[in-house]
Amino acid sequence: MNSSTTVAPPDGGYVHGYSGRETRRLGEQANALVELLHEGTRYAAGSRVLEAGCGVGAQTVHLVSRSPGVRLTALDVSRASLGRARARVESECPGASVEWRHGDLRGLPFPDGAFDHVFACFVLEHLVDPLGALVELRRVLRPGGTITVIEGDHGSAFFHPDSPHARAVIAHQITLQAATGGDALVGRRVEPLLSAAGYDQVRVDPRTVYADRSRPGLARQFTIGTFTAMVAGVRDEAVAAGLTTPADWDRGIADLRRAAEKDGTFHYTFFKGTAVSPTF
Amino acid sequence: MNSSTTVAPPDGGYVHGYSGRETRRLGEQANALVELLHEGTRYAAGSRVLEAGCGVGAQTVHLVSRSPGVRLTALDVSRASLGRARARVESECPGASVEWRHGDLRGLPFPDGAFDHVFACFVLEHLVDPLGALVELRRVLRPGGTITVIEGDHGSAFFHPDSPHARAVIAHQITLQAATGGDALVGRRVEPLLSAAGYDQVRVDPRTVYADRSRPGLARQFTIGTFTAMVAGVRDEAVAAGLTTPADWDRGIADLRRAAEKDGTFHYTFFKGTAVSPTF
Repeated sequence: MNSSTTVAPPDGGYVHGYSGRETRRLGEQANALVELLHEGTRYAAGSRVLEAGCGVGAQTVHLVSRSPGVRLTALDVSRASLGRARARVESECPGASVEWRHGDLRGLPFPDGAFDHVFACFVLEHLVDPLGALVELRRVLRPGGTITVIEGDHGSAFFHPDSPHARAVIAHQITLQAATGGDALVGRRVEPLLSAAGYDQVRVDPRTVYADRSRPGLARQFTIGTFTAMVAGVRDEAVAAGLTTPADWDRGIADLRRAAEKDGTFHYTFFKGTAVSPTF
Repeated sequence: MNSSTTVAPPDGGYVHGYSGRETRRLGEQANALVELLHEGTRYAAGSRVLEAGCGVGAQTVHLVSRSPGVRLTALDVSRASLGRARARVESECPGASVEWRHGDLRGLPFPDGAFDHVFACFVLEHLVDPLGALVELRRVLRPGGTITVIEGDHGSAFFHPDSPHARAVIAHQITLQAATGGDALVGRRVEPLLSAAGYDQVRVDPRTVYADRSRPGLARQFTIGTFTAMVAGVRDEAVAAGLTTPADWDRGIADLRRAAEKDGTFHYTFFKGTAVSPTF
């Protein structure tokens, strides 16, 4: 879910209005989503931290903001993404110390035990071999170092009003991600994967986003700007693959957006796992 | 989900063992589930509380234990359930002051404004007209009185290893409940229902149960003893309705139980809503 912290403005009328009070509320709730994912993750100044799979830097800016003074290495397999991440961090967090590295989780360009902490957010979902990646990440962690893994699980998405069309577009997104070797349902596997990769003290907590009329900022930011936008992004692929028709697809997306209206609700659960590299 | 606080012992071997330490841990986690649902619900001594739909008293014992000195009225449409609830409370909470009343949520045997608080847990899911019931409950609340509603949502159930057979038995349970006019997916509707029924200050929070190897008590109590037991209870109905075969059904139940094993995970979300009866 790479768009999780990009907040697209709704392209239609927004049922909850745009008053000054409302704007402040939306801002607070945008921060609430970052807090939901990053709460509990703060690294000591001077510690060596690897962000594995930084993508376009959506989480990198929060990592360096919340852990001032860390020595962050941000790695991604895409040079284009690395360039965008670097520009974003230089713009939003001038002065942050980040080393940008191109590399692959199947074979990291670092010696054993090079890091005190590893952070990986919305990365395992894209990998053919998430277990192998976690084992390789354990290699570059010093004994006693920690790993933090955050993943979503599209099986946790449900909403009111319920809609078979909306459920279908989510199912198509899951199918397309699986076709590339990924797993949009990986959240439920975070604990078994960390344990199988040989980590100690594995602890996984669900972190649930629930939006209703009392939380209009979350409905706008998450239901529309994050989840629906992410699913909507695979429209052409889904149609080309013969999974759906343009009309059915658009109906499903419209029904997802419907859940962000005043009497709608939307539920999604992320899983945040932490674990320790064995000391023996 | 009437069985939510009944903890059936597993009928097969329990992967996490039965050591004394383990037994304490299980007990703590059983308490954790009660805490998950009842946290934040405490009524002042002397206040008039209606438990609407007390069933066999599964929640009644926690209500009177956690709010000593309340004047509780427990109502149910089933005289048989009322008898079991009374026996349970007299056994587990001797000395508690409870008035037992037979009655129907479509027309309550109480005058307007008779109560300071209403509590209803796993009730709306069984009603043909949950909105009408909430309106009638508002009638018997004094202005400024509070209502607390707790419901599950079977759409929130997912697990590892995933299994189409297990998903099918859950879907059949949802279908059978719908055939009686109920809604096993009502959790997502708690906020819209409370708002439509005319309450103020509606606030709904998801309360998520997540079980993995680090929480063996929850796997035993909730995955097996509550959720799987509840679904398993409709086996004969599902087969008689032609929804499934005995073999397919048993495979689905076995796969649900599989999620409680060491490398399995299970996720379920309850919704707890509170609201206030308007003062004007």
